[in-house]
Amino acid sequence: MAESKSKQFQPASGTRDFLADQVQVRQAAFATIRWVFERHGFEPLDTPALERLEVLTGKYGEEGERLIFKILKRGEQEATGEADLALRYDLTVPLARVAAGYQLPSPYKRYQIAPVWRADRPGKGRFREFVQCDLDTVGSSSPLADAEVVLAVAGVLRELGVPDARVLLNSRKALAGLLEAYEVPADLGAGVLVSLDKLDKLEPGAVAAELTGRGLDAAVAARLVEDLTAADAEERMRAALKGSEQGRDGLGEIDRLLSLVEGEPEATGIVFTPRLVRGLDYYTGVIFEAVAPGMPGSIASGGRYDHLIAALGGPDSPAVGGSLGVERILPLVAATAATPGRVDVAVTVMGEDLAAASFRLATAVRRAGVSAGVYLGASGKLGRQLKWASEQGARFALLYGAAERDLGQVTVRDMVSGEQTSVPIAEAPEVLARRLAR
Amino acid sequence: MAESKSKQFQPASGTRDFLADQVQVRQAAFATIRWVFERHGFEPLDTPALERLEVLTGKYGEEGERLIFKILKRGEQEATGEADLALRYDLTVPLARVAAGYQLPSPYKRYQIAPVWRADRPGKGRFREFVQCDLDTVGSSSPLADAEVVLAVAGVLRELGVPDARVLLNSRKALAGLLEAYEVPADLGAGVLVSLDKLDKLEPGAVAAELTGRGLDAAVAARLVEDLTAADAEERMRAALKGSEQGRDGLGEIDRLLSLVEGEPEATGIVFTPRLVRGLDYYTGVIFEAVAPGMPGSIASGGRYDHLIAALGGPDSPAVGGSLGVERILPLVAATAATPGRVDVAVTVMGEDLAAASFRLATAVRRAGVSAGVYLGASGKLGRQLKWASEQGARFALLYGAAERDLGQVTVRDMVSGEQTSVPIAEAPEVLARRLAR
Repeated sequence: MAESKSKQFQPASGTRDFLADQVQVRQAAFATIRWVFERHGFEPLDTPALERLEVLTGKYGEEGERLIFKILKRGEQEATGEADLALRYDLTVPLARVAAGYQLPSPYKRYQIAPVWRADRPGKGRFREFVQCDLDTVGSSSPLADAEVVLAVAGVLRELGVPDARVLLNSRKALAGLLEAYEVPADLGAGVLVSLDKLDKLEPGAVAAELTGRGLDAAVAARLVEDLTAADAEERMRAALKGSEQGRDGLGEIDRLLSLVEGEPEATGIVFTPRLVRGLDYYTGVIFEAVAPGMPGSIASGGRYDHLIAALGGPDSPAVGGSLGVERILPLVAATAATPGRVDVAVTVMGEDLAAASFRLATAVRRAGVSAGVYLGASGKLGRQLKWASEQGARFALLYGAAERDLGQVTVRDMVSGEQTSVPIAEAPEVLARRLAR
Repeated sequence: MAESKSKQFQPASGTRDFLADQVQVRQAAFATIRWVFERHGFEPLDTPALERLEVLTGKYGEEGERLIFKILKRGEQEATGEADLALRYDLTVPLARVAAGYQLPSPYKRYQIAPVWRADRPGKGRFREFVQCDLDTVGSSSPLADAEVVLAVAGVLRELGVPDARVLLNSRKALAGLLEAYEVPADLGAGVLVSLDKLDKLEPGAVAAELTGRGLDAAVAARLVEDLTAADAEERMRAALKGSEQGRDGLGEIDRLLSLVEGEPEATGIVFTPRLVRGLDYYTGVIFEAVAPGMPGSIASGGRYDHLIAALGGPDSPAVGGSLGVERILPLVAATAATPGRVDVAVTVMGEDLAAASFRLATAVRRAGVSAGVYLGASGKLGRQLKWASEQGARFALLYGAAERDLGQVTVRDMVSGEQTSVPIAEAPEVLARRLAR
């Protein structure tokens, strides 16, 4: 974003102003995402930024709850210092509310691209107002639904041109089978997974130490870490999981999904990753996380969560979904997006008596589907006005002075080459539309 | 919007959930508006929903200030019951902040389409969260800038297809001249304009009575009301205004604008309307208001406001702008917008062993740029699946059973005519793309 000159005029801490270039890059990315989601049969949903406080309360755990922006009661009630409304914290709780409140198609495949608000400590790449981008299928336990979500997410990364993105794939059932296969005591299971989740950040030795710290037998911890980080981790896991029913179920889910996407251009980037855990404990089946070079952590994630919608106050429906970390993805693709100029055509005004004609010229050009701006400043100097045209990023400038008027022509100046050509005034709009379409 | 089944699942009072059909209608309208604005050389701006409370305080008058949604401080500060942030109340104060805070092109022509929040009593067509749609040119006093704003607003109404929309045009200077011409005492001027503003709602007699109640001479009041509501009101006003310098200036502004837009398709709907006042007292020149049959009150409005940006904390720049009441405009055009189906193509799943092939068929169809959904339910019955395809609003259904597999074909069912044709499976995506493009 652009840099504000003075604190007084800055946006609130953790929020951003987006000027034209940035809006255009973001809108283009959102349009691509929308199109990929819709092509996969997901329909849009738009819920309000404000929710009744009780809808959000008790849904995000103690830590999450502290980050909710609460809205003070109004009027006479303001003095109580109490809140009755809150800003949307994510897009999943509103989905649960909508799934409970309306007669929807089943399964309900919806996407939502919208800002959420979290009173987090603002930091590099961490904002208090940021866009989330979710897609979910509520009401189907078909493995096709899982594959569709993963493929839509991978499809977005591909269409946005995120270089070398990969989708890491695992299953909660495979993880349960893993714990079984390595004979991890039941009461240590959750903690062991939390530690294993750090294998992408910490040294294997540090993770093994954490595991033994949790009470896991040192030999088991060492073997677990070694197997999961080995070059042939996948083979080792496949062998280990065969001994557990849950493990076989999990492997079945993963292989089914891999076979469904096989042959698609995205498929090469979708890889079974036995050490993938995903912190959130509401997942019940397939889980995934997308990563890309140049951005630490994940850029998208999701999985099957068959009981979450009910836990959030919605109907008890199986569900699978994903979320694109669009604020983390944009820096990876923004550089490649071309930022267009403000207008295609800048129309100069060569004197007070020619202003009306210049204005009408701009209007005529717009009617041909071309964006145009007319000079609104006070300077009558051509040099100054051409500088303005150039600042506008205009591809062409139109010059209409007394000489042009007498001939019924207008001068079209190519702002890149500097070349000038004369065209009859009535033909100018079409000429410009044609030259811009090239 | 759709009707929620139970209070518990309803959105907060005065806010709305938009399901797919409504999102699509709204997004299409916003896209049209964006395109018209950009064609006129306005660039997008996006500011945060949250502003520091001090940015909004003291900007909207006592009444407006009460309607601001304030956000409670977080953490230990929450118990104080104090607010430090607030939800955006309009798009003009953020514009003033941005105009002051950044190095921007001059003039700065920006538009913003974004929700604002007001703690108004919710009512029919009145919401607490609603989209505003503003365009403004900051930094130019050229009459071309005024004409550009009016033409862009009229252009949006035309492109959206609002039937019989008209843009009522007047000038603050003409109104000042009017007061002068009718010898209204200076101290009564503001009140007289407030009363005249009611001529579109109240009987002329009632307005005249209100004027005399304000202390205006009864004969003057009667003459003023009669002249402004006469069939030849425009001629009477033109004659009256000639005697005042301000009146002549105002007429000049109006005629200049009318001559600039002359000949455009929108121009016939742009009419000098001497009784148009616009309540807000920050306007300094041309003012306008758009109206349309079927919607009481205005559907768009604006004017020149040369000192407002400074008053709101921005630089002291001349400015002109307009605002489209998009929530009021949508009901006038929504009926004409076609709502597309959820998917173009619905792919049935004729048995567990054929699910993967059906899934891949859907993926192949999407690659051809066609939206497709695969059946995610549990029923193996064709009738049930065709019902699903029909509920999806799909134009075509694909049937791929054992018979089709053996032939390497797929059956394409036209969901409108019921006609079924067989095509080689590899050709299906292109056949569908071609038939849908018709």
